[in-house]
Amino acid sequence: MKSPLTPPHRLLLGPGPSPVEPSVLRAMTKPVLGHLDPEFIRIMDQTAERLRQVFRTRNRLTFPIPGTGSAGMEAAVVNILEPGDSIVVGVNGVFGARMADAATRAGAAVTTVEAPWGAIIDAEELGKVAREQNAKAVAVVQAETSTGAHTPVELIRREIGPGPLLIVDSVTGLGGVPLEVDKWGIDVCFSATQMCLSVPPGLAPITFSSRALQVVADRTMPVQSWYFDVSMIRQYWEDGEASRSYHHTAPISMIYGLWEGLRLVLEEGLEERWNRHREVGEFLQGELADMGFDLFAAEDYRLPQLTSARLPPGVKDDLRQVLLNDMDIEIGGGLGEYAGKIWRIGLMGFGARKENALRLIQALRAVM
Amino acid sequence: MKSPLTPPHRLLLGPGPSPVEPSVLRAMTKPVLGHLDPEFIRIMDQTAERLRQVFRTRNRLTFPIPGTGSAGMEAAVVNILEPGDSIVVGVNGVFGARMADAATRAGAAVTTVEAPWGAIIDAEELGKVAREQNAKAVAVVQAETSTGAHTPVELIRREIGPGPLLIVDSVTGLGGVPLEVDKWGIDVCFSATQMCLSVPPGLAPITFSSRALQVVADRTMPVQSWYFDVSMIRQYWEDGEASRSYHHTAPISMIYGLWEGLRLVLEEGLEERWNRHREVGEFLQGELADMGFDLFAAEDYRLPQLTSARLPPGVKDDLRQVLLNDMDIEIGGGLGEYAGKIWRIGLMGFGARKENALRLIQALRAVM
Repeated sequence: MKSPLTPPHRLLLGPGPSPVEPSVLRAMTKPVLGHLDPEFIRIMDQTAERLRQVFRTRNRLTFPIPGTGSAGMEAAVVNILEPGDSIVVGVNGVFGARMADAATRAGAAVTTVEAPWGAIIDAEELGKVAREQNAKAVAVVQAETSTGAHTPVELIRREIGPGPLLIVDSVTGLGGVPLEVDKWGIDVCFSATQMCLSVPPGLAPITFSSRALQVVADRTMPVQSWYFDVSMIRQYWEDGEASRSYHHTAPISMIYGLWEGLRLVLEEGLEERWNRHREVGEFLQGELADMGFDLFAAEDYRLPQLTSARLPPGVKDDLRQVLLNDMDIEIGGGLGEYAGKIWRIGLMGFGARKENALRLIQALRAVM
Repeated sequence: MKSPLTPPHRLLLGPGPSPVEPSVLRAMTKPVLGHLDPEFIRIMDQTAERLRQVFRTRNRLTFPIPGTGSAGMEAAVVNILEPGDSIVVGVNGVFGARMADAATRAGAAVTTVEAPWGAIIDAEELGKVAREQNAKAVAVVQAETSTGAHTPVELIRREIGPGPLLIVDSVTGLGGVPLEVDKWGIDVCFSATQMCLSVPPGLAPITFSSRALQVVADRTMPVQSWYFDVSMIRQYWEDGEASRSYHHTAPISMIYGLWEGLRLVLEEGLEERWNRHREVGEFLQGELADMGFDLFAAEDYRLPQLTSARLPPGVKDDLRQVLLNDMDIEIGGGLGEYAGKIWRIGLMGFGARKENALRLIQALRAVM
C-alpha cells in the first residue's frame, strides 16, 4: 500500500494518449479553485476562446465535456436526437460504429453508410442516403482512430446539402489535420484532449452551432442524459459571470491542463502544427513502406498523425510487448478483426517529432 | 494568450472541491501511460482495491467512473433502470431531486418521498411507499450536499426490506462519515473525488453489488448510455490483465491522483478519518451557534463535513465575496430557494482541520 507511484517513462506512439507537454502537467498542479470562483470562470472563458480558435469556429457554446472522447460523442448524439429521429452514420471503423450504437440507444432510426476499414466514406452515397431518409442529422468520423483513414469532411457537407445537421467526430483530428468547423458547415464537433492536443485524457472538447442549439431548444422530450444535457450545461459555460449556475463540479485541474495545452497549440500556430504533423507522418509512412509494411489506410486518405500498417509476413504482434517492455515504446494493435494483423502508430501533438519516428524505426529494425 | 496560469491560493471551505493534498497533485504529474499498458493496469487494480476498502465492500466491480460526481449518479441510475421500472427516490434537497430527474429521463416510473430541506428522509415512509410501488429500486442521498443533512442509510435498508435494490449517493459522504456498503446492503453506491477524498474533481468512484450486476445482465434493453454502460466498462476494469478490452481511454492522470488520495486515506485509517471529520465539524458547528448562526440541518442528523447555517439577521450573502476576495477563503451559498439565506461550509478531507475552522471563524468575526 505504501509503494510509491512510479510509472515508467514510455514513449507514447500508440493511438492515444500522446506524449504530454511538461508545462501541461505543471499547470495541472496549480492551486485548485472552486468551480464558481470568478478567477476560475476567467480561466473557463479563456479556455473556451482558445477552443474556438482551434476548432475554427465562432460558436458561443464551445467547451470541454467532463469526460473522455466517447463522452463527447455521446453528448453530441443524445442532445441532437430524439426517439424516432432519422440519422445517417458513416461507418468505416470502430468509431463510426460506436456513434451508430449510441444513436440507436437514443432511440433514433439509424441508417449506416459503410465503407471497408481503411477506406473512406463515399460522400456522394452518404448524400443520397441522407436525402432518401430525410435525415435530421448525418454523422461521420473525420479521423478514424481504428484505421488511420481521413475522411474529407468538406465534401460531406457539399453532398448532403444544407438540410441535415452535420456531426463530426474529430477525436484524433483536432490540432493534427485541418478542421474548419464554421467554413465546412459542421453543427456539432467533438474531440479529446489526449490526441493531437497533448493533454492527458479526461476531457472532450465540443462545439455546437446555433442551429444545433436551436434543435436542442425545440426538443419535445428532455435529453435522455442529465449529465450531458447542454441546455443545462450552457448555463454554466456561457452565461455572464454573475449568473453562472452550477451544473456539475468542473474537473478543475484537467481544465488547467487543457488551458495550457491550447496555449501551446496557438503559440506554435495551428497551421504550423498541421504542417508538422503532415511532415512527420509522411516521413514515418515512407520509412515503414521501405521496411516492407503495407500501409493500411487508402492512399491519399491517410492521416499523418495516426498510421496503420499491416504486419509484414513473419512479423508477430507480440513484438509490441518487446517494444514496450524492453524499449519503453508504446504502439497500438489492431481492433476487431484486425487485432493481430495491423499496428497503429500515433505521432500526435508533442510526440509528432522526427526524432520519435526515427527512434521507433530503429527499434523496429532491431527487433524485427 | 501568453499570460501564465496563476490561480490564487484559496482556502477551499465550500461544498467541494476541498483542499487537495500536495502529494496528490504531484502524483498527477507522473508520466502518462497508455490505458492498456500492463503497468497502468496494475495501478488500476490497486486503485480498485483501495476503493473497496474505503467503500467497505468486496464488490468486484468497484472503480472510478470517468466523469464528475453526477456522472456517477447517472451511471447508477441508467444501468439499473429500464423504461417502466419503478423506483422510489428520497428527496430532501438538490441531489435527491437530481436522481429523480435522471431516473425520469431513463423512462422509469419515479415516486418521490420528500422531506423538507435540512430534514432527513423518513425511512419508515420510504419502506411503505417502496412496498406499495413494488419498487425495483430505492435511492437515497446519504450526505445531502445542498443542506448538510445526514440520512442514516442503515435504517433505510431495514425499512425497505431485502427486495429492492438500494442506490446510495455518497458524493459528500465517502471518507467523511461511516459508510458500510456491504454491511448495510447497498447495491450501488457512488461518490466523487473532490469531497472527503481530497482529490481534484473529475472522477466518480462507484461500486456495484453482484445482485446489481445481475440486474444489468438481465436487462431486456441495452443501457441507454453507451458511455456509462457497465456491462462494457467491466471488461476494462475487471478482466484478467491479458484480456482487458478497451472501452474508453481512461483519464490516466486523474486516476494517479485518486491512487494517491486513497493511499493517504488508508494510511491515516478510515475510522480515524471519520473521527477527525466529526471532531472538526462539531467544533465548527459549536462556534457558529455561539456566533448567532442557526444551524440548518436537523439536530442529530448533521454532517460534520458539510455544515449549513442560516445567515443571522443583518448578515448579507455578499460577505462571501469579501471572504473570497480579501481573505482567500471560499465558502458556499445556498441553492434553490435557500440562495442568499444559508451558507454551506465544508471541512472535508485534507481541509478538515481545526486550524481551518479557526481561520474561518476569525475571518467571519472580522467581516460581520
